[in-house]
Amino acid sequence: MGTEQDINHQMKVVTGDSGYVLEDVPHLADYIPDLPTYPNPLRSNPAYSVVKQYFVDMDDTVPQKVVVHKDGPRGVHFRRAGPRQKVYFDSDEVHACIVTCGGLCPGLNTVIREIVCGLFHMYGVTKVIGIDGGYRGFYSKNTIPLTPKVVNDIHKRGGTILGTSRGGHDTMKIVDSIQDRGINQVYIIGGDGTQKGAAVIYEECRQRGLKVVVAGIPKTIDNDIPVIDRSFGFDTAVEEAQRAINAAHVEAESAENGLGVVKLMGRYSGFIAMYATLASRDVDCCLIPESPFYLGGEGGLFEYVEKRLKENGHMVIVIAEGAGQELLSQSLQSANEQDASGNRLLQDVGLWISQSIKDHFKQRKIAITLKYIDPTYMIRAIPSNAADNVYCTLLAQSCVHGAMAGFTGYTSGLVNGRQTYIPFNRINERQNKVVITDRMWARLLSSTNQPSFLGPKDVIEVRKEEQPPNQLLDGENGKDDKPGN
Amino acid sequence: MGTEQDINHQMKVVTGDSGYVLEDVPHLADYIPDLPTYPNPLRSNPAYSVVKQYFVDMDDTVPQKVVVHKDGPRGVHFRRAGPRQKVYFDSDEVHACIVTCGGLCPGLNTVIREIVCGLFHMYGVTKVIGIDGGYRGFYSKNTIPLTPKVVNDIHKRGGTILGTSRGGHDTMKIVDSIQDRGINQVYIIGGDGTQKGAAVIYEECRQRGLKVVVAGIPKTIDNDIPVIDRSFGFDTAVEEAQRAINAAHVEAESAENGLGVVKLMGRYSGFIAMYATLASRDVDCCLIPESPFYLGGEGGLFEYVEKRLKENGHMVIVIAEGAGQELLSQSLQSANEQDASGNRLLQDVGLWISQSIKDHFKQRKIAITLKYIDPTYMIRAIPSNAADNVYCTLLAQSCVHGAMAGFTGYTSGLVNGRQTYIPFNRINERQNKVVITDRMWARLLSSTNQPSFLGPKDVIEVRKEEQPPNQLLDGENGKDDKPGN
Amino acid sequence: MGTEQDINHQMKVVTGDSGYVLEDVPHLADYIPDLPTYPNPLRSNPAYSVVKQYFVDMDDTVPQKVVVHKDGPRGVHFRRAGPRQKVYFDSDEVHACIVTCGGLCPGLNTVIREIVCGLFHMYGVTKVIGIDGGYRGFYSKNTIPLTPKVVNDIHKRGGTILGTSRGGHDTMKIVDSIQDRGINQVYIIGGDGTQKGAAVIYEECRQRGLKVVVAGIPKTIDNDIPVIDRSFGFDTAVEEAQRAINAAHVEAESAENGLGVVKLMGRYSGFIAMYATLASRDVDCCLIPESPFYLGGEGGLFEYVEKRLKENGHMVIVIAEGAGQELLSQSLQSANEQDASGNRLLQDVGLWISQSIKDHFKQRKIAITLKYIDPTYMIRAIPSNAADNVYCTLLAQSCVHGAMAGFTGYTSGLVNGRQTYIPFNRINERQNKVVITDRMWARLLSSTNQPSFLGPKDVIEVRKEEQPPNQLLDGENGKDDKPGN
Amino acid sequence: MGTEQDINHQMKVVTGDSGYVLEDVPHLADYIPDLPTYPNPLRSNPAYSVVKQYFVDMDDTVPQKVVVHKDGPRGVHFRRAGPRQKVYFDSDEVHACIVTCGGLCPGLNTVIREIVCGLFHMYGVTKVIGIDGGYRGFYSKNTIPLTPKVVNDIHKRGGTILGTSRGGHDTMKIVDSIQDRGINQVYIIGGDGTQKGAAVIYEECRQRGLKVVVAGIPKTIDNDIPVIDRSFGFDTAVEEAQRAINAAHVEAESAENGLGVVKLMGRYSGFIAMYATLASRDVDCCLIPESPFYLGGEGGLFEYVEKRLKENGHMVIVIAEGAGQELLSQSLQSANEQDASGNRLLQDVGLWISQSIKDHFKQRKIAITLKYIDPTYMIRAIPSNAADNVYCTLLAQSCVHGAMAGFTGYTSGLVNGRQTYIPFNRINERQNKVVITDRMWARLLSSTNQPSFLGPKDVIEVRKEEQPPNQLLDGENGKDDKPGN
Repeated sequence: MGTEQDINHQMKVVTGDSGYVLEDVPHLADYIPDLPTYPNPLRSNPAYSVVKQYFVDMDDTVPQKVVVHKDGPRGVHFRRAGPRQKVYFDSDEVHACIVTCGGLCPGLNTVIREIVCGLFHMYGVTKVIGIDGGYRGFYSKNTIPLTPKVVNDIHKRGGTILGTSRGGHDTMKIVDSIQDRGINQVYIIGGDGTQKGAAVIYEECRQRGLKVVVAGIPKTIDNDIPVIDRSFGFDTAVEEAQRAINAAHVEAESAENGLGVVKLMGRYSGFIAMYATLASRDVDCCLIPESPFYLGGEGGLFEYVEKRLKENGHMVIVIAEGAGQELLSQSLQSANEQDASGNRLLQDVGLWISQSIKDHFKQRKIAITLKYIDPTYMIRAIPSNAADNVYCTLLAQSCVHGAMAGFTGYTSGLVNGRQTYIPFNRINERQNKVVITDRMWARLLSSTNQPSFLGPKDVIEVRKEEQPPNQLLDGENGKDDKPGN
Repeated sequence: MGTEQDINHQMKVVTGDSGYVLEDVPHLADYIPDLPTYPNPLRSNPAYSVVKQYFVDMDDTVPQKVVVHKDGPRGVHFRRAGPRQKVYFDSDEVHACIVTCGGLCPGLNTVIREIVCGLFHMYGVTKVIGIDGGYRGFYSKNTIPLTPKVVNDIHKRGGTILGTSRGGHDTMKIVDSIQDRGINQVYIIGGDGTQKGAAVIYEECRQRGLKVVVAGIPKTIDNDIPVIDRSFGFDTAVEEAQRAINAAHVEAESAENGLGVVKLMGRYSGFIAMYATLASRDVDCCLIPESPFYLGGEGGLFEYVEKRLKENGHMVIVIAEGAGQELLSQSLQSANEQDASGNRLLQDVGLWISQSIKDHFKQRKIAITLKYIDPTYMIRAIPSNAADNVYCTLLAQSCVHGAMAGFTGYTSGLVNGRQTYIPFNRINERQNKVVITDRMWARLLSSTNQPSFLGPKDVIEVRKEEQPPNQLLDGENGKDDKPGN
Repeated sequence: MGTEQDINHQMKVVTGDSGYVLEDVPHLADYIPDLPTYPNPLRSNPAYSVVKQYFVDMDDTVPQKVVVHKDGPRGVHFRRAGPRQKVYFDSDEVHACIVTCGGLCPGLNTVIREIVCGLFHMYGVTKVIGIDGGYRGFYSKNTIPLTPKVVNDIHKRGGTILGTSRGGHDTMKIVDSIQDRGINQVYIIGGDGTQKGAAVIYEECRQRGLKVVVAGIPKTIDNDIPVIDRSFGFDTAVEEAQRAINAAHVEAESAENGLGVVKLMGRYSGFIAMYATLASRDVDCCLIPESPFYLGGEGGLFEYVEKRLKENGHMVIVIAEGAGQELLSQSLQSANEQDASGNRLLQDVGLWISQSIKDHFKQRKIAITLKYIDPTYMIRAIPSNAADNVYCTLLAQSCVHGAMAGFTGYTSGLVNGRQTYIPFNRINERQNKVVITDRMWARLLSSTNQPSFLGPKDVIEVRKEEQPPNQLLDGENGKDDKPGN
Repeated sequence: MGTEQDINHQMKVVTGDSGYVLEDVPHLADYIPDLPTYPNPLRSNPAYSVVKQYFVDMDDTVPQKVVVHKDGPRGVHFRRAGPRQKVYFDSDEVHACIVTCGGLCPGLNTVIREIVCGLFHMYGVTKVIGIDGGYRGFYSKNTIPLTPKVVNDIHKRGGTILGTSRGGHDTMKIVDSIQDRGINQVYIIGGDGTQKGAAVIYEECRQRGLKVVVAGIPKTIDNDIPVIDRSFGFDTAVEEAQRAINAAHVEAESAENGLGVVKLMGRYSGFIAMYATLASRDVDCCLIPESPFYLGGEGGLFEYVEKRLKENGHMVIVIAEGAGQELLSQSLQSANEQDASGNRLLQDVGLWISQSIKDHFKQRKIAITLKYIDPTYMIRAIPSNAADNVYCTLLAQSCVHGAMAGFTGYTSGLVNGRQTYIPFNRINERQNKVVITDRMWARLLSSTNQPSFLGPKDVIEVRKEEQPPNQLLDGENGKDDKPGN
């Protein structure tokens, strides 16, 4: 190709003119020689007969950074997802399996449905099974047969029909099971840890020289997966969070010195809290893991709460579950002679902050009425909304196209509004976080009027950090666009 | 700049290396010399104090086409939206007005709210008024004072607090009123025709040499405005349409030979119908303006309906309001001696298709039960959902930043997930339509199993047309990416 | 018993002291001698082991009129529903069938579910089948086996899993089919016409001397069945109607001279329209079949609309589908040379009134914006809400208890908050209607401020009519309790 | 009257033939002689002009027990609510105030709205004020002027616009404030404690000989007020609780050994838990205060949970907040050296039972996944549904009619579907509770299949208790009708 090419097992880097870089995904042909190919069966599909140029051009790529300068470098690109002219599997040969891992997220069932229906309707694949109860199910449970009929209505239900579980799996046993059952396409839906597991499973399949595609679909209600625009279910979660915030607002307004505290998901990143706050506009303070805060003293939370109550008579606080962890652990240490079960409960940051605020105002002899709402499971368990349903469909179909085309070791993901295939290591290398030096967070501060909880020194330090954020809807999280970064 | 530059009044075209083209928006300084500038007051806004690089680099642009080739041309770009270092208005000097025109759309009130709050909180602007009842209100009604307090809760309500109307306005009188009242920022929220009107108002202001920014925010529940990713309210509309489709499905399932017909919005483009169909998966046939169809004969709608009823016992049809217009007008002509009011009702394509199907099966002596649902006004009138609320906020704030920075004759719009300023003529030159030679429509056909209603000849003709579609969520409507196009 | 007793085939009248009258339901033992009885299996049901006095006392009755005077007569009573000490069926002997007829109504599936589960869990009955597609299904279709597992989740879905149809059935063929299949409990869920059909089926079974219980559960979303407090699904319908009214209100408010017109169910009675109006409080005019109105002239609808538009700038009209029928037919007659299909559409009172208003204001040269919403099928097709779910459960269980106890020719119904068995003829003798000389309607007039559309002469006539209303939630429709009335 | 009459200050008992008893409410004329009366202004209200017999007959009464025997005694009756021919206040003379106390409940704003609108539209009363923040507001806060315009849209919002608080009030100061401000109608909306407070305020007004009506509207989301059919907001609460149960069900189903625990309101009575369970049908165990249970050992909760998990793989538990209090306090005592804040948290029965179940299965070395949902504040804070809106309207209007008619010391309440006036002492004498020896609870046990947690000895004891339940929708809680009971 006349360009440099650096190949490792997780990512193939191709460079071009004007700083163009393609971070490409692995392919079965990388380690299995002489694989036969077949014409894509979509050619003869009546639904697609009218499509002008159905197959994705092999050279199509999508830039990671979309804000550009006239003379700036072109930067990192990803391979565009979609059907290819040639496929590496005969339809009858395919034996696919789907596994869901980790916590619930709206849209899981839609993704399952669309992988099954995509394989069936687009590629004529009939052998698809579900793994029961997460990774462990590969070796400890029977599989679940999946047909278009079985999955027909599941997108209207929350949860996952396959069941799910966290952690604790044995890669060797999983790959043994894949090999023993003759599975050759593995679709893995899960978060951070799950995708890391998928990368290891891919590596093991590659080591063993298996003709097995390992493909991931990133699932994280927290939206904390990097590179991609947003994760499925996020939209639905932000929508549903409005209910809890509305309730907190009503409770707060109806009492003297009324405080409504809502805990939202987000162990390491505060996207749900931030977007739910922006969408609602009834929130007076939003606390997220990325933005440190403190309770007492000048510029602290207590001072702000007192000020708001004095001004408005009521206030609403939204706190992400991972916010203020260092404060919380200090507080727990200073009380380490306490009862274990009490401690465990206090580890819920929502209960802890509620208690801390109550204690503070008790000490200050100011009567307050605080209501704490934790809608977490009510949010996770609802079916996906229409936008997420369509999004899940595209993700699932893209993932299927990639597998049929012989790509492996990739996750499907939306980048700048386009479906792409992204190498596992780019997804797993770090977590996506709210960039608090970014305009979106400034917008939030401006909308809530809360203090930034940052002293001048903090500001300098925060500014020094460099975190390429992902982009969601907003078009302005683009410090990464700068040539200097 | 060492590049060609072609200036007209609506668009300034700048070109660069590798086929880079910038289609830039006008600026007050284009026709008013020696305008004073001021430092942006956001500098001293505490909420923004921590933002690393708050102001948008003057050189930031966003490409219209995001799927690229290693060595392909870079193509058309738009100016990135956002706050600038310098503003062309002193805060006290600003006198802004907001007008909403055309049909209702979820999110109108949120956009109004966020323009008012954005001007107030970000730029300290206090003089904002609403024009009552659309364009005509400029000269025939009193204005409505708008403050952050007045607009505080309006985003939770459907409709527009300013009122709206269609058509019939007098540009001269409007600009007279703008001049007489001393208004210098005009925010115009409306669809196709409204934005064309805005372009004329901008031209007149320019002719008169007025320091008046004319800025548009495109509003179209049908998503038929080109260039931008999606219009606000669309997401909410697709979500709400699910209710009607669900009801049609239940009615159809509960009767023998049960047919549910749902008419959705879309006079010239079938986006709502297409996305609602894809999100629901209970629809057996989706008819849109872009895809011609016929009733009788082989491969026609009646044949398909009969087939589905025989197979399944029931079916659901979604029809966009603008579908089958040529069939409908033929049908009306052949009955031109009829009563006017009857005719008028039959011009509702949903009533017409329902009647046609009933007549057909009556003739065929097959008993059917057909239920027709028109949820149009129930969809238009609901408040925007969380995703649209956040989207409206960004649109409104971008629009305000642009006005303060002295740009004029632009609409704010999301392009590839980024806020941009787009010249009026690009928005107005044609309508965005579903491209039926595109993968998204193929996906729909595949999901519903409906026929394409196209003979072989049609296929060839359709393929010849060239319509750069807009992109919504999907990443694959990208024929425009092809060098050859 | 020392009291008079008048027996006919549909009702057994028993009288007592102080004007006490019991209108009792038939029993299998009335026409089949020497029927064996069995101890009620609920005796040994662990769930009921703690119940103090589980079985209903044979003498329990419920008064139709609950507002009483110290010395007034006691009036009509019905037999209280509930399990009896002795049952007339051995569990293994029971072969039950369920049929649903007429239009959809929220709660149909819940009633089906609870008959199946009630028979199974309470009485150990396993042979239950569904009749497919209404009465006709008895002889023209296969039956549908119903088990607790099959019906487990159906209460979460709208419609009826059995299918339904209207009219046209052959009693002889139905009873033949009942006899041939060995069915001995027939549960018939349907409205007015369906219950009349049930009465005839009962008569035929009685004639033939069959040991077959024929039991009805009244279904009418319009609430137009007499005697009972309210029909199932009514609550859900009123709730769902709020959406349409809200949308109409938003549309009306956002336009100059904006009119929102909502058509609600109610062919012969305006209960849904009345309650939806009272619950919403955004309605300016509610038109129902019971209250005649006129369009033109002094005190007419047009005058009122004009007045409201002048005062408020917008208004919302709710019209029951059966309102204004005589006006509508006059209007159609005067245009009888018109096209049939146009006419048919105009027979929709909502379209007709909308057109009439538009025509009037066109003539008056006043520009109005009228939006017409018909949410009928969106209301009918939703699943029942929690209150209706519980209500359907009680209705179904009461009905099952009655059948097991050998009663026949009855409908289950709530009377003054108590489950009772009511003879068919009492249900079928007339329709329940809104009494417009009653306080509830006065409340509505007071809430909307609409004119009564009654001249002095009408008032006198209306007052003369005597219609014992049913009671719903309201406690004051009880003038009929007066001896003098 | 020829009948015995026993007058005390809270209730006037009148007896009649056949065991007829009327428990009548006090009247201003009881202690103020020679009060002038006025004709009811409703006479000239156009909305009521058509009403046949608008005014309630003075002799109308409503029986408490509606299931009767032919020859049984007639029992206790209450005075029927509604407008009287004569009123004891001139419209201009009325100065009304409204106060809301205790926790939030859907419908509070509707009741406020309808008192204000009822006084204004029916009686022409213009002086209505709101007391800010509960009882204490009488003497510690400014009042809030209430007009039809102010309250126009409040029924669409949750909470109470007046604010609310619990406990701690000073009767003397309240009556002083009533007297000083010249208030003569006091509408008190609140629960148990609030109505007791109202009785004391009434007594004090009577002592002082004030022409002040003290009227209560019972508010208890738990439905624990005796005599009345159901309390407002209960319907809405049961509806909204379905969301939480659905979420718990999805979470449980998606995990291996998945347990969903939902805590619902109900400190002393389990009505919400019971009805939400019956409406949902996804619940495997419902624990309420009235039905004692135990954890370990044979027939205990742990055994049942283990059994269900073995059978189904998942289960849902609904627990009322007041259930298992004695177990909980034992558990807390045995850990009394613990940290206070931990303890306080454990006093939440939902957290406690969740922890207990987790501990048990940890000990048994069985991995479970338990998700705990507490939707309390999300339920309390929503606006009332349509059914509750209509109900609140009737309650409020009845209350207003009673006050205008000079009655005092009463609460408005629905008894057997009829609006009545009930003496305070009947409302306050005890709490309404689920009768676990009743058929409704048996129905629940039968639906969930849970054990009764009662040994044979308990059964006997439970049967001995006598608790006249209230009746809600169900018609069968009527053992109290028996003469023998």
